[in-house]
Amino acid sequence: MTGKTINELNIGDSAFVEKTVSESDIYLYAGITMDINPAHINEAEASKSRFGKRVAHGMLSAGFISAALGTRLPGPGTIYLGQEIKFTAPVFIGDTIRATVTVQELTLEKNIVRLKTVCTNQDGKTVADGVATVMAPKV
Amino acid sequence: MTGKTINELNIGDSAFVEKTVSESDIYLYAGITMDINPAHINEAEASKSRFGKRVAHGMLSAGFISAALGTRLPGPGTIYLGQEIKFTAPVFIGDTIRATVTVQELTLEKNIVRLKTVCTNQDGKTVADGVATVMAPKV
Amino acid sequence: MTGKTINELNIGDSAFVEKTVSESDIYLYAGITMDINPAHINEAEASKSRFGKRVAHGMLSAGFISAALGTRLPGPGTIYLGQEIKFTAPVFIGDTIRATVTVQELTLEKNIVRLKTVCTNQDGKTVADGVATVMAPKV
Amino acid sequence: MTGKTINELNIGDSAFVEKTVSESDIYLYAGITMDINPAHINEAEASKSRFGKRVAHGMLSAGFISAALGTRLPGPGTIYLGQEIKFTAPVFIGDTIRATVTVQELTLEKNIVRLKTVCTNQDGKTVADGVATVMAPKV
Repeated sequence: MTGKTINELNIGDSAFVEKTVSESDIYLYAGITMDINPAHINEAEASKSRFGKRVAHGMLSAGFISAALGTRLPGPGTIYLGQEIKFTAPVFIGDTIRATVTVQELTLEKNIVRLKTVCTNQDGKTVADGVATVMAPKV
Repeated sequence: MTGKTINELNIGDSAFVEKTVSESDIYLYAGITMDINPAHINEAEASKSRFGKRVAHGMLSAGFISAALGTRLPGPGTIYLGQEIKFTAPVFIGDTIRATVTVQELTLEKNIVRLKTVCTNQDGKTVADGVATVMAPKV
Repeated sequence: MTGKTINELNIGDSAFVEKTVSESDIYLYAGITMDINPAHINEAEASKSRFGKRVAHGMLSAGFISAALGTRLPGPGTIYLGQEIKFTAPVFIGDTIRATVTVQELTLEKNIVRLKTVCTNQDGKTVADGVATVMAPKV
Repeated sequence: MTGKTINELNIGDSAFVEKTVSESDIYLYAGITMDINPAHINEAEASKSRFGKRVAHGMLSAGFISAALGTRLPGPGTIYLGQEIKFTAPVFIGDTIRATVTVQELTLEKNIVRLKTVCTNQDGKTVADGVATVMAPKV
């Protein structure tokens, strides 16, 4: 159950995880994180907002990126060092989000990998975009 | 139930949320995000890892930052545009994490606020560190 | 799957449900209800409080009373009209709470039942105490 | 992160929390409290009942009152002593419930506050109504 070491990684390698975001995902995420912002759990308020309905927490998409890194590429043993992320479009209940990570840069002597991270919805629209920095699994 | 508009914010304004991270937080977070990396939910594997036991997902701390932004400062109505985050130390089950956000830069004409974001544990150790970019609530 | 009609109930009839309160019960309850009071989910804060550690939400015990009424006595079909409840002692993680309901008064012509409701912990100490008013199931 | 002491409270002070009740709220609440009454989690049974569909647990609304007391008014540090509550109308999946608490009576020498507690839905209909008794936070 170990992911790829840095020597097994190549620029351009890519992997993804994908999930349909349910209302319960958003509600549980709100409870876990204390983020009970009405935009996420109050339809009456959200209907008057910019997006017209409840939206998922942006950081939920960042969680999907974490999943792609920690379970697919590089996979188990990866240590997450940092993330830059831009939230570019809202995620609604029922949207299917794909988090794709692509190896962009390998620093062999430091065992550091940088990956492009993109979350898209079922229409191919980018909802979050950024770069992850991780330490690759050791043998 | 609306947060502060950009005109009500000042450089240095600060707020926080705080929570003791439970095993159930980590397990539910794993389920919601699909991040079933053994480091988080497999004590047998985790005991052989660098940290010696299960650790919380780094992105869980990012969720606490989202909570501080969306419920405290600027508060409800805030739109999360982006985050840079570095994970600087592990979070273990039972740690109490405080996510503090501090206004650092105000771009009035674009309604953009940048905030320093720091997560610390009960010993004052920084576990995550970064900068958030948000759109302040409108009147 | 129908409970007892008012004609099948007698003064003094009694039933209970019982459960060990887990940390995850409290954390999920906090998320569902938005009650993220630090007394329930922040050990660092709670350790400085009157009770010395995190306590369950008092209303969680009221939920157990609801369970006793709606699943045992009178059982399915019961309509909960009201509750008076006093919280008399804290509930801690790991406590086993028994919610006992006892028929106290029957108003046949209105189909109204009043029941004494008591929640006790594993040491027999009363943690919540009160009276429920319900409409009994119809045939 | 401390709420208002009794000296900072005035008769008529008011605060609320608000949330759209999701199916997952009801199902999780059922699991946490053991209240698996078919009225809440069995659509086939509930469709034949008085309300025609699944309804939320009345005590879920009481949990929102607890949230308003423990996070808003008086806020953190409040000790919940008791509640009288009447359930006056059903809450359905998708309803947005506002729990409003209003200071009604202050007993300074005992540090006791009584608050009117009302839960209303998105149409302004009262679904639960009552009075809470709390001990205000100490300095």
